[in-house]
Amino acid sequence: MKDVRLLAFDADDTLWDNQSHFDKAVEDYCRLLSCYGSMDQMYRELYKTECGNMESLGYGTKAFIISLVENLVRVSGGQAPNQMILDAVNIGRRILDNPAVPLEGVKETLQALKGKYRMVIFTKGDPLEQEAKIARSGLGEFFEDVEIVGNKTPLEYRRLCRHNGVRAAEFAMIGNSFKSDIAPVLEMGGNAILIPYGLLWEHERVEEYDHPNLIRLKHFSELLKVL
Amino acid sequence: MKDVRLLAFDADDTLWDNQSHFDKAVEDYCRLLSCYGSMDQMYRELYKTECGNMESLGYGTKAFIISLVENLVRVSGGQAPNQMILDAVNIGRRILDNPAVPLEGVKETLQALKGKYRMVIFTKGDPLEQEAKIARSGLGEFFEDVEIVGNKTPLEYRRLCRHNGVRAAEFAMIGNSFKSDIAPVLEMGGNAILIPYGLLWEHERVEEYDHPNLIRLKHFSELLKVL
Repeated sequence: MKDVRLLAFDADDTLWDNQSHFDKAVEDYCRLLSCYGSMDQMYRELYKTECGNMESLGYGTKAFIISLVENLVRVSGGQAPNQMILDAVNIGRRILDNPAVPLEGVKETLQALKGKYRMVIFTKGDPLEQEAKIARSGLGEFFEDVEIVGNKTPLEYRRLCRHNGVRAAEFAMIGNSFKSDIAPVLEMGGNAILIPYGLLWEHERVEEYDHPNLIRLKHFSELLKVL
Repeated sequence: MKDVRLLAFDADDTLWDNQSHFDKAVEDYCRLLSCYGSMDQMYRELYKTECGNMESLGYGTKAFIISLVENLVRVSGGQAPNQMILDAVNIGRRILDNPAVPLEGVKETLQALKGKYRMVIFTKGDPLEQEAKIARSGLGEFFEDVEIVGNKTPLEYRRLCRHNGVRAAEFAMIGNSFKSDIAPVLEMGGNAILIPYGLLWEHERVEEYDHPNLIRLKHFSELLKVL
């Protein structure tokens, strides 16, 4: 990756843990609904509701909270007590308090890379929610820019390069999702570094493949071996 | 505004109507809750809930839907029927179907400006929701870029200029909100054109002032007189 001048980092589950907060909320929610069916059944019902809402509501915590409410009304046959509905909303709301503690090695690695590359955060999601996490993470100082987008397709990656005045070959994306952080970057001619994060949301799972511009790492701190 | 090379346009209530869809939803919602109090009381209760949620949830349709649910549970003393909760969610969901029909004169004016300036959309909100409205409006072809942000402060406006390779003096923002589209732009040295839109959300109201870099217009098509 000798020509690379711009590093863009995914945020959730690359710089800090996010998925486990969703997983914990799903677990708490299914337990709250245990009077309506087994944990497994409740998982499946919620995932069905979430997938059905994907097109109209997208992802993110607020869409998730609305799914929690709609699913509860449906699964309870319209008999859910108001307090249970509030409890469901609050289970979702707790995700907003994610402290965004940097994953192991992230801070030291960013510190070592700082000044050698132009570094930016490039993430999907709700701008206010993502900006709050960046602030809480304490990592803001390492990045010269933050861009938050609705989708990560080759179009958005081309824009990102233009905004930062680099060609695709001078750009490397670092993230945990092959679907969002890797495939569209390889398609537009950029470089990509995949650092998987144990937990991956069902909806982000895709078939992976190899590519000359793709590097796979096990740990964030290994970035220093390839950059 | 002789040095201006970049025009950034606010979207909601500048290019198309948005506030009236929220106002209609609020009205339908207060009518739905009429068994719990007068329309006026219900308006006030909802606004109180919305303001209380502003810091944690921000604005946008999904935050609004969550406020509708929480407020209903509160106002009903925890006695709201499940069907009424679903009806509230659906009143909010209808805002997502905003057809984003361009306001009078917008399309013709953009057509006349195209090629003379670099033109971009710069708006707050949920990226997926805003991108869907841009697509439905049919105005996408007039803009070379779209940026969606959580806040519009001088920081975001300086980034916008940098992304587009212009100085603040070469930049003009066009929008309907003095608080979001005008004040922060004047503060960072840019130019601003205010086109008020009858309806303004209570939360966006601020004290206005005059400034040498500010132009006030009554109608979008008057842009052609000053640009």
